[in-house]
Amino acid sequence: VGTLRADARRNRDQLVDAAGALFAERGPDVPMEEIARRAGVGVGTLYRRFPDRDALVRAVAFESFHRVVANARAAAGEPDGWSGLTRFVRQSTADMRLATWLSLWFARTLAEMRLEHEHEELRDELLGLLDRLVVRAQREGVMRPEVGVGDLAVLLALVLRPLPGPLAAVTERTVERHVTVVLDGLRARPGDPLPGRPLTREDLGRPGGDA
Amino acid sequence: VGTLRADARRNRDQLVDAAGALFAERGPDVPMEEIARRAGVGVGTLYRRFPDRDALVRAVAFESFHRVVANARAAAGEPDGWSGLTRFVRQSTADMRLATWLSLWFARTLAEMRLEHEHEELRDELLGLLDRLVVRAQREGVMRPEVGVGDLAVLLALVLRPLPGPLAAVTERTVERHVTVVLDGLRARPGDPLPGRPLTREDLGRPGGDA
Repeated sequence: VGTLRADARRNRDQLVDAAGALFAERGPDVPMEEIARRAGVGVGTLYRRFPDRDALVRAVAFESFHRVVANARAAAGEPDGWSGLTRFVRQSTADMRLATWLSLWFARTLAEMRLEHEHEELRDELLGLLDRLVVRAQREGVMRPEVGVGDLAVLLALVLRPLPGPLAAVTERTVERHVTVVLDGLRARPGDPLPGRPLTREDLGRPGGDA
Repeated sequence: VGTLRADARRNRDQLVDAAGALFAERGPDVPMEEIARRAGVGVGTLYRRFPDRDALVRAVAFESFHRVVANARAAAGEPDGWSGLTRFVRQSTADMRLATWLSLWFARTLAEMRLEHEHEELRDELLGLLDRLVVRAQREGVMRPEVGVGDLAVLLALVLRPLPGPLAAVTERTVERHVTVVLDGLRARPGDPLPGRPLTREDLGRPGGDA
């Protein structure tokens, strides 16, 4: 995209923003015409930038993923690990959820075999940043010691994915409550440890390897 | 089924058990021939009892649902509410998960418009039993006060639903860890209350009403 003229680049950004907003509101099946209309461009322009829906969905997911990684970088700079981690989760809920809506987060984007190289690097960076935040929060004594970054990633993927059917609207309204319940469940406290062993980055599978 | 001869009834039970086990192992697309083989009956017998896959899936989900409700009835008799609730959740994980695998739990079985009357009664009974356990556990001071039975139901539905793709195997292995994290997140503790308001039975929608 480096050679796009300025207005083509602006059209592209407007299309990705409009598609992201409409996907978040109504899922990834929104008519392409509506996306073009919301972006203020013609359908011809849309298809010149994104030859099919898949290309547009990938672009939206990619932008979301970039914002998530940017949030994790900022969180890594916080003086305490638990605050950094919880701030990251709260800031990233909408973007992680958007990617989830698109069925790309984890199921395809993070675990699919044929990832773009850049995407693979972002995934590694994200899991590395979160891993260090988890370790720091555990050293501070605030986070329960028997979880790994894989547990965090899987729990977020589970709780952020909307329920199907008519309950999708309910999960839309309650996602922040339920993310908070999960974060509270990850706090250190006296009591029985979790069954099983901590889930690591490796347990999530490598892109191109077995998951 | 009251008029089935004893061996026909036995065949039916064997088919439902075999289908439940195979659905749990491999999802609802297992070939019908394998289900018949595991049940020790011929394919002809299978199709005589269950004209299509849908009928079999419904029967399996229905049996699971019956076991879940039976667990809730037993939990209601426990002397303390929180123990009853956590025991119910642990006992019912496999059955609720099975129904989830079948995409029936919540998405169709609990929220679909055209529920059988008996199913609707079971759903009402289950939510009523859980509601009373939640209220008791809150009075005991063990469960956080600002959640409703709807929060419990939605959180369980979220955390019990396997992730799609290659991560399905991961969630299969970690479901008990992650259910425990959610239960711990529902315990009372000093700190900020959850954002939003408690989710009630009514928020889950009525079968036949708007969800």
